[in-house]
Amino acid sequence: MTEKKDLAAAWFRELRDSICAEFEKIEDELTGSNKASLPPGRFERTLWTRNSEDSPNETGSVLKGGGEISILRGRVFEKIGVNISTVHGQFSEAFADKIPGAKDNDGAFWAGGISLVAHMHSPLVPAVHMNTRMIVTSKSWFGGGADLTPIFPNPADTSAFHKALKECCDRHNPAYYEEYKNWCDRYFYLPHRKETRGVGGIFYDYLESSNHENGGWEADFAFTKDVGKTFLAIYPQIVRAHMNKSWTEDEREFQLIRRGRYVEYNLLYDRGTQFGLQTGGNTEAILMSMPPEVKWP
Amino acid sequence: MTEKKDLAAAWFRELRDSICAEFEKIEDELTGSNKASLPPGRFERTLWTRNSEDSPNETGSVLKGGGEISILRGRVFEKIGVNISTVHGQFSEAFADKIPGAKDNDGAFWAGGISLVAHMHSPLVPAVHMNTRMIVTSKSWFGGGADLTPIFPNPADTSAFHKALKECCDRHNPAYYEEYKNWCDRYFYLPHRKETRGVGGIFYDYLESSNHENGGWEADFAFTKDVGKTFLAIYPQIVRAHMNKSWTEDEREFQLIRRGRYVEYNLLYDRGTQFGLQTGGNTEAILMSMPPEVKWP
Repeated sequence: MTEKKDLAAAWFRELRDSICAEFEKIEDELTGSNKASLPPGRFERTLWTRNSEDSPNETGSVLKGGGEISILRGRVFEKIGVNISTVHGQFSEAFADKIPGAKDNDGAFWAGGISLVAHMHSPLVPAVHMNTRMIVTSKSWFGGGADLTPIFPNPADTSAFHKALKECCDRHNPAYYEEYKNWCDRYFYLPHRKETRGVGGIFYDYLESSNHENGGWEADFAFTKDVGKTFLAIYPQIVRAHMNKSWTEDEREFQLIRRGRYVEYNLLYDRGTQFGLQTGGNTEAILMSMPPEVKWP
Repeated sequence: MTEKKDLAAAWFRELRDSICAEFEKIEDELTGSNKASLPPGRFERTLWTRNSEDSPNETGSVLKGGGEISILRGRVFEKIGVNISTVHGQFSEAFADKIPGAKDNDGAFWAGGISLVAHMHSPLVPAVHMNTRMIVTSKSWFGGGADLTPIFPNPADTSAFHKALKECCDRHNPAYYEEYKNWCDRYFYLPHRKETRGVGGIFYDYLESSNHENGGWEADFAFTKDVGKTFLAIYPQIVRAHMNKSWTEDEREFQLIRRGRYVEYNLLYDRGTQFGLQTGGNTEAILMSMPPEVKWP
């Protein structure tokens, strides 16, 4: 298992580097738009480490390890955070109840992953979220996905995004796309608004292929890598298709209001946020998903 | 109990009227400040009713009744919502477990209350929250409180606010202030930030004076009324002390960032928000507490 953890952690880091490089290229390429006079943005990186035995957090969980926050505030990307982390420790008893295999393991866990949320200056360019992770308790599994949140949904973008994810899924298991698309729609749903968060994508969790009787850890890791690569192939296409257009103040205002839904989702329902905060994770990293500017008028 | 419910509901409405009248007076009185050229704001009221048997909500709870939203977007108050509501119904089984006396009552409940959150244009005028409510299951109790959230805490305001609340508490029970001040500090705490929401105030719940062996429902109702009256006496003083000052862009920017904490608290931890959303309450009324403009830069 140690080798598998290392392979996964190395991949999340490699994917982070590829994403950051591509997004800085996008920053350089901007020619039009209301923000074109700004200088192209560059990622700034901050390492963090945690040893909660030294400074116990208030959740009752023990968290050790660390991660790296990469944040860019640019002229296409208003705010994008790309986090990688590799942590281990022990869940509190209450939290262990909620995590498969954690109780049988005295609450001990390991988690590695990459998480990304992009909020764009332009209301014409969709916001996006992508996250993949490997978790180890007495079980071990992968989870993640990617979903698109346009302010003004555009059928061409929605269909290109889903087509890329479907092809990715189909390369690994013909059942995945249907299952993970539906899971995404159920998961990114705001019951108090009776709205989905965006136009969906895929969401998967507890992927441990002994359950699926095909391929084991290697197959799940290959799929997880492909989700990352697929995201990196398709999202920049959608950004480039719209980033040089100008927008109106009314469009921007509507974007700021729609971002309120993103905040509501992430703080009320998102399991990643809950997981992070309840295990005493790095607050700055966890709440990097918050939009830079929001309105509830 | 029917008469008590009616008395409480009538009081919440009367308090709402007094607060709205006083706050409109404040809007008229503004002479200085960056927003003085705006017209004085006026409350707009919206009635809502709900019969979730007709249109079942997704929480499994049944909610009937309704309320009235009063909202003012003015030149002192950037956004203030004052909600009153009188609802009854049946908690879902999961939710009934969390509410005293609900299980013994097959989940049936009644709730009446007033809830107010004010977000100010000026970063020099504190935001504020006040809420009082009566809840009936197989038990019946009052709860509520008021707490102040200055952007730049000012010892004179903090001390005046607490002095007024202490005098209010002392008029009813010499033990209340100490107990309810501490409860407020514990309750309005953001563990992920290791910060209190503001400079506190009082918070009380499950106040059913048969437990305290003094005065019964009448005493608790008298205290609850006094909390409302005390809020109405002290908060306008604090507003008037600062509302005519001008502020800088840096001060405003800091206010927008601090408002992020308010959002984080309300969506991650606030029991009123959870109660409302989980019983299928009116989303617009519940999320009226969201600040009009927020930044997470």
